Amino acid sequence: MTNYGQQLIELSLKNWDGHVKRAHDFFSKLSDEQLELEVAPGRNRALYLMGHLIASNDYLLPLLGLGERLYPELEAYFIRIPDKTKTDYPLAAELREKWEYLHARLAERFATLTIEDWLSRHTSVSEEDFAINPTRNKLNVLLSRTSHISYHLGQLALVQV
Amino acid sequence: MTNYGQQLIELSLKNWDGHVKRAHDFFSKLSDEQLELEVAPGRNRALYLMGHLIASNDYLLPLLGLGERLYPELEAYFIRIPDKTKTDYPLAAELREKWEYLHARLAERFATLTIEDWLSRHTSVSEEDFAINPTRNKLNVLLSRTSHISYHLGQLALVQV
Repeated sequence: MTNYGQQLIELSLKNWDGHVKRAHDFFSKLSDEQLELEVAPGRNRALYLMGHLIASNDYLLPLLGLGERLYPELEAYFIRIPDKTKTDYPLAAELREKWEYLHARLAERFATLTIEDWLSRHTSVSEEDFAINPTRNKLNVLLSRTSHISYHLGQLALVQV
Repeated sequence: MTNYGQQLIELSLKNWDGHVKRAHDFFSKLSDEQLELEVAPGRNRALYLMGHLIASNDYLLPLLGLGERLYPELEAYFIRIPDKTKTDYPLAAELREKWEYLHARLAERFATLTIEDWLSRHTSVSEEDFAINPTRNKLNVLLSRTSHISYHLGQLALVQV
C-alpha cells in the first residue's frame, strides 16, 4: 500500500522538474542582451527574475534540511529588494552557471529523501507548530516553490523578444 | 501505511484550494471597472484572465470524470482565443457568480474521489498511453491546473490599480 505514497512523491518531483525545465528553456532561449528586457514597462527584468528564482530555490537546501545555501550572496540582489536598485548585478553568464549547478544539486539531494522525510516538518516551523499543523512539511515547501516558478513564468511570458 | 497517500492527496487539495482562494481574493478586491485593466499595455485584461481561469478549471469536471462542464459557452471567449477579439464579453457580475459556483462544485466533487481515483488515468489519455505513462493521472491534472492558476496570478500581480 505504501507505493501510493511513493507514486505521489514521484509525481510532485516530476512536476518540480518540469517547472525547472520550462524556466531553464525560457532563459536559454534569451540572449544575455534579451535578459535585460522587462516583463512590462518599468517592471522586473528577465535577468532579475532568473536571479530571484535561483536565490529562492537555493533556500530549499536549508528548508528541507539538505545543507546550507550555495549562493547566499544572491539574496542581497534578488530577494525582498526590487529590481534596478543596485548597480552591480551578477552577469548573465554567472547566473546561467549557478542555475544549472543549483538545480542539478537539488535534484541529487531530493532523490535522497524518503516519504517520511517529505512528510516531516520543514526547518522553519517549530515542532510545536508542526504538531498543530502537520501540512507544514517538506513536500508542502516543494509544492509551494514549484508554484512560485510558475508564477514568474507567467510574467516572463510577457517579455517581448 | 495508506495514510501517507491520504496525507499527500490532502496536501495537493489544500494547495489547489489556496490557489483558488488567492485568485478569488484578487478578483474580489477589484471593482468591475478595475477588471478592465490590462496586466501590461496591450495585453490581457484582468476580466479576460478571470474568464480564462473559469473556463479552464471547468474542464476539470470532464477530465476527472466528474461530469460535464458547467459553462461550455465560455470556451468561445476565453480559451485559445486572444482577449479583445470579441465585442460581447460576459459581464463581470456574471463571471464572479460563475467563479463562486464552479469552485464550490469542484470542491464538493473532489471530496468524493479516493486515492485510487486520483491515481487513475484522466479521461483525455487512452488506457494504452496510461499503461506506458502512469503519471498521466487525475492528480497530475490537478497539480497542473494549480500551477496554471499561479502562472496567471503572476501576471495579475502586474495590474496597476
